[in-house]
Amino acid sequence: MSSDPPYLDATEPIEARVSDLLGRMTLQEKVGQLTGMHAGSFLDTRRKHTQTTTVSDVKEAVREHYIGSVTPFGTGLSQYNNVIVAARIANRLQRVAVEETRLGVPLLVPVDAIHGHAHIEGSTVFPHNLGMGATWDADLVERAARVTATEMAATGANQNYSPTADVSRDPRWGRNYETYGESPRLVSDLVAAETQGLQGETLADSDAVAATVKHYPASSAPVRGEDTAPVDVSSGTLRRVFLPPFERAIEEGVAALMPMYNALGNEPIHGSKYYLTDLLRTELGYDGVVCSDWLGLWMLAERHRVASSLSEATYQAVDAGLDIASVGGPEHAERLTELVETGRIAESKIDENVARVLRLKFALGLFDDPYVSPDIAVETVGSDAHRRTSLECARKSITLLENDDDTLPLTDPDSLFVTGPNADTLDGLVGGWTVLGLTGSSGTTIREGLSRGIGGDASVTCEPVPAGEESPDLDRVEEAAADADAAVVAVGEAWYLHEFGPESVVGPTDAFPKRNQLRLPSDQRELVDVVSGTGTPTIVVVVTGRPLVLTDVVERTDALLVAFFPGTTGGDAIADVLLGEVNPSGRLPVSFPRSIGDLPVTHDWLPHPSPLGGNEHLPSYDPLFDFGYGLSYTSFSYDSLDVSDETVSPGDDVTVEVTVTNTGERPGEETVQLFGQNLVSSYVTPVRELKAFAKLELDPGETKRAEFTLRPRDFSVVHPDGQYATEPGEFELYVDDHSRILTVEE
Amino acid sequence: MSSDPPYLDATEPIEARVSDLLGRMTLQEKVGQLTGMHAGSFLDTRRKHTQTTTVSDVKEAVREHYIGSVTPFGTGLSQYNNVIVAARIANRLQRVAVEETRLGVPLLVPVDAIHGHAHIEGSTVFPHNLGMGATWDADLVERAARVTATEMAATGANQNYSPTADVSRDPRWGRNYETYGESPRLVSDLVAAETQGLQGETLADSDAVAATVKHYPASSAPVRGEDTAPVDVSSGTLRRVFLPPFERAIEEGVAALMPMYNALGNEPIHGSKYYLTDLLRTELGYDGVVCSDWLGLWMLAERHRVASSLSEATYQAVDAGLDIASVGGPEHAERLTELVETGRIAESKIDENVARVLRLKFALGLFDDPYVSPDIAVETVGSDAHRRTSLECARKSITLLENDDDTLPLTDPDSLFVTGPNADTLDGLVGGWTVLGLTGSSGTTIREGLSRGIGGDASVTCEPVPAGEESPDLDRVEEAAADADAAVVAVGEAWYLHEFGPESVVGPTDAFPKRNQLRLPSDQRELVDVVSGTGTPTIVVVVTGRPLVLTDVVERTDALLVAFFPGTTGGDAIADVLLGEVNPSGRLPVSFPRSIGDLPVTHDWLPHPSPLGGNEHLPSYDPLFDFGYGLSYTSFSYDSLDVSDETVSPGDDVTVEVTVTNTGERPGEETVQLFGQNLVSSYVTPVRELKAFAKLELDPGETKRAEFTLRPRDFSVVHPDGQYATEPGEFELYVDDHSRILTVEE
Repeated sequence: MSSDPPYLDATEPIEARVSDLLGRMTLQEKVGQLTGMHAGSFLDTRRKHTQTTTVSDVKEAVREHYIGSVTPFGTGLSQYNNVIVAARIANRLQRVAVEETRLGVPLLVPVDAIHGHAHIEGSTVFPHNLGMGATWDADLVERAARVTATEMAATGANQNYSPTADVSRDPRWGRNYETYGESPRLVSDLVAAETQGLQGETLADSDAVAATVKHYPASSAPVRGEDTAPVDVSSGTLRRVFLPPFERAIEEGVAALMPMYNALGNEPIHGSKYYLTDLLRTELGYDGVVCSDWLGLWMLAERHRVASSLSEATYQAVDAGLDIASVGGPEHAERLTELVETGRIAESKIDENVARVLRLKFALGLFDDPYVSPDIAVETVGSDAHRRTSLECARKSITLLENDDDTLPLTDPDSLFVTGPNADTLDGLVGGWTVLGLTGSSGTTIREGLSRGIGGDASVTCEPVPAGEESPDLDRVEEAAADADAAVVAVGEAWYLHEFGPESVVGPTDAFPKRNQLRLPSDQRELVDVVSGTGTPTIVVVVTGRPLVLTDVVERTDALLVAFFPGTTGGDAIADVLLGEVNPSGRLPVSFPRSIGDLPVTHDWLPHPSPLGGNEHLPSYDPLFDFGYGLSYTSFSYDSLDVSDETVSPGDDVTVEVTVTNTGERPGEETVQLFGQNLVSSYVTPVRELKAFAKLELDPGETKRAEFTLRPRDFSVVHPDGQYATEPGEFELYVDDHSRILTVEE
Repeated sequence: MSSDPPYLDATEPIEARVSDLLGRMTLQEKVGQLTGMHAGSFLDTRRKHTQTTTVSDVKEAVREHYIGSVTPFGTGLSQYNNVIVAARIANRLQRVAVEETRLGVPLLVPVDAIHGHAHIEGSTVFPHNLGMGATWDADLVERAARVTATEMAATGANQNYSPTADVSRDPRWGRNYETYGESPRLVSDLVAAETQGLQGETLADSDAVAATVKHYPASSAPVRGEDTAPVDVSSGTLRRVFLPPFERAIEEGVAALMPMYNALGNEPIHGSKYYLTDLLRTELGYDGVVCSDWLGLWMLAERHRVASSLSEATYQAVDAGLDIASVGGPEHAERLTELVETGRIAESKIDENVARVLRLKFALGLFDDPYVSPDIAVETVGSDAHRRTSLECARKSITLLENDDDTLPLTDPDSLFVTGPNADTLDGLVGGWTVLGLTGSSGTTIREGLSRGIGGDASVTCEPVPAGEESPDLDRVEEAAADADAAVVAVGEAWYLHEFGPESVVGPTDAFPKRNQLRLPSDQRELVDVVSGTGTPTIVVVVTGRPLVLTDVVERTDALLVAFFPGTTGGDAIADVLLGEVNPSGRLPVSFPRSIGDLPVTHDWLPHPSPLGGNEHLPSYDPLFDFGYGLSYTSFSYDSLDVSDETVSPGDDVTVEVTVTNTGERPGEETVQLFGQNLVSSYVTPVRELKAFAKLELDPGETKRAEFTLRPRDFSVVHPDGQYATEPGEFELYVDDHSRILTVEE
């Protein structure tokens, strides 16, 4: 073979290259493209199928089994967290695939870069998605994703297991912080932005990576809030709440999709032809790659018990519509080969799946140049410019919920006292899906941020009082708090993954944070009591990955702000807000319930009968802090809510405008929130639902006009069968306390 | 018309009579048969559509509008609670219908006889269904229902808005006590028994009434536990959990069915052709009458907002498959007439609906004799024989959950102290759907039961300490408790309807009991603390309509028993158990959760993935007290679990037997519970699910064999589309700690 075959000719169209390459492949070579592996070991050694896989193992598997997708770093299970090492491993693995296999098909290298390429030390770590959701800023989300893609690509990773399109519905779930919040609209817009940011102008760009939207279609509402338990929702709710962000990602051309581990009702998605083919491909028109969640196939047999063997699970998943078994390894390749050889799976089906994988690899330009420069990786990962973007995100994510008597900003305090389990920790500030043991140059703790920010001769003293500590010296805390001009108590949650694990890192499953407790643990509440009891102005900073029940805390504090795992620059961002360098602009992307007995608590609840009268029930929605709530150091007023036309025909767009004025004395940023409601519709629709949002920066006294375009789908009603219909009748729009009624004509 | 027309000829077949009568009817006469009215006023005067309707109003409406269904008594809204008055009103109304309308069609007279004909003073009031569920005794449920039907029929009521086929899934819901528990099997069997008991051998019997199964298909799992809020479950869960009891009622020939107020997802059932026709009639083969829940049509327009007017709501409901608008009144008849006259609803559709109503009236024998004897009514209602059945039910419903050091039974105490808000109340003991203000001869409070039962010179002192009392004299309570040989603290819930209302009876919606609180209120917990703190043996009696969180209470007591609103004989029954006259045999029909954050907590949970390892989550099912749990004063042992065949073909029945021995020193009754599990199935099935149960009475040392027949459906798997399939593979059976594996062949 003296001259290159057509599939290696970059001037050929991708479809021609795919077709040429596929025609040359043996069954084994094909099946390898549908098989992934990771290098590392699973976290929980008590799991039955514990396995540790080395990079050498992976190399051998690529040579022997033509494995097509490899994750050697960039996850919590990896042993390699160093930039140079990662880049070199990526190169070595690609070299084996390209130079030591017959056809030289390069590798997909997927990673968990959930909020930055954060399993690599020194990378830029952004606020988690719930914090990004609090910014309500799609442009910022896209810029952050660009940074993440750039850092990933520099190390040789080319696929991100992100964005998360899950819509937060139950604060008990441990993965709330991976969502952009409770509103399908907010999540859709930010998922679209993240997809754009990761995939860049074109996947062929050297700093673009394939986005993987997950966890299709609805992993965020597991029963009991128990991670990966069945999601039990009606088709109407699936269509109205959970599917829209996936639909948006598909519209944006997302390259890959990951099914949820969960069953929907009693139907596990990894084995469901309805969800993976009929709905996803036929109805929604998705034509990208479907990758299993890591042990998705194993779970079909061993946990869901819908398959009597791993071979049967493999059959079910592939028959359903799965392309890549993400960590299937050689055993998966062998099982799949046998299924084809025994005629259970048609080779034509395998060809379709392989074609999708190859199409993606061609689109990513991997056949043309799969290698990276370790030197450039070092320059790129965690660059100053990237960190500035991260700091901007963190600042805009901080959400001020209470500020009695303008306690904040702190003006020239001589002395600050900082305490609480999140006062001086980086790991606690970043949350899970991040390399553990962050210190020093990786970022700034709250204490460090305050020390840096306070300036002059002022002092910051700190008693961190680690979480769960048996007998913290509360006398010392009380004395220090009493002596200070103001006290900051940093409480909340610590680093965790999935359902508040793993135990080896986080401690016993029955310790806070845990799914059945949303109140702060008693030691943290006592700490707040002791500090606020001194009479010193007390600011509580809640670092958390989900809405907590703060009903009693809020009564005992002068000011309260929330940071949703704000990342490595979180300490600076929080200090900037406390000290007035930054005017807080975060708005809650989730409702904060009054009690755990009130769940679910979301702004878009459905109206319903009232057999004993409308006021005989406790309210359906009465959270401690509403969805969309957040304070500023300035104030805003709204006026002149106008619509382009009060009567619209089906199919028409509508333009909505409103005037916003900064009526305070500081520049500030306002998030204008447009809610809407179908007054009568063929199926029940929410009493209020976020329809659009916009951000405005306003100087004191400045007035701006916010403009929104509503599309027909924004007025339409989703039927349980998934059809959207624009229905004649009245549609009410709300911004702040202004409202307008649109009439949709027949 | 000198001779009777054929429809009045009792020797003619019903279909011929229906056909003859229908052929004679004008549109207005037909529409009247689809229209109900009640005499009374709605409870909540703040409801927009408040109306009071007198018996005279109803008479006029029957004359003018041929109203076919009337509820003049037997509900919480009625002004007539007296037996004689009720029977006379029934006769008077039937006389108007029969003698003062052209065709003389008699009336359906439906009532809410939920646990006895309990809106009539002096009637026999049984434990609520959750208590009947705790008896696990289908025969007893049937006998109780026979009593209810007999008392109803004696007063001229001929249709009962019962049985409730809802399956308890969320303790927050205020209507848990109306269910037979959390198990579809337990609920199915008891709903079948109640249907048989109400309807008797044949509806034509003078003491049979039409049963109305409700609230179709799944009202018991409203989101947030909020009564009548949308039920958001997958089709798989609907089929597996909620539909089976309705299917059983239909198999038993239930005469009527009531849809739930709620939407399923975003689809209100009262307006859903899918649920009321496609699923109910076409798929499940139901051919009885469908009656609206009272304001079901009004709710479509005014609460669900799926209809722009009451006329539109009427169209939707009738088009969907509704027959009778239960309290529609003349306005409904007029709206329906107009819908037919304008051609929106075909008269042939009306004819079908009317035929169903007429068929039921003929079956009930109303055309032959609709009248009752007030004198016989007085003898019948609350007869001694009926009350003995009620006492038997109450005794068997009491469930003993804790009995440290054989605190119970109390043996010859010289003095007992009784306290707590449920210590000396009848209303509190019976729960809602019962006439209010019960005293004296109506029944026995716990204090009265103990005083009667203790005998001899022994004394019973009582400090009731009403619920929510600001400053009960706890010193006096403490002193009295310290002086007694044993103390009984009767705590729990009070009389309530729906979501713990109405306010006019129950007090503010934010007071306990309320949906977001399952712990006893602090005053009740303090009372338990004070009493148990004296060192006197302390027995807590929890009177409740739902599972409560008793985690802290159980630690502070020596013995604990639960009575699910045990009815008017509850005081005697509780005393009998405490004093050892009766050996308790109740078993929990619902799980008692450890905390409200753990919900839902049911024994038949679905297994699911475990990304971080099997033991990294809090358990999916770890209640304080398991479903099926309950103590006895004797003990039982199990042996020799046998199956008729270890290998079964699809379609085969299987007989399962197990040996049970009373190993203690008292006669006792044991509930043998057979659980099963599909080890592998095409869709996810529960880890454990109740498949059958049996009751055995055993003398000390006696051994009996319990036998169960499992039908093919018991092994089969329900698919999301509703099809049941018997699948090859292993099926494990459990009784106590014994198990057997069945193999189902291909």
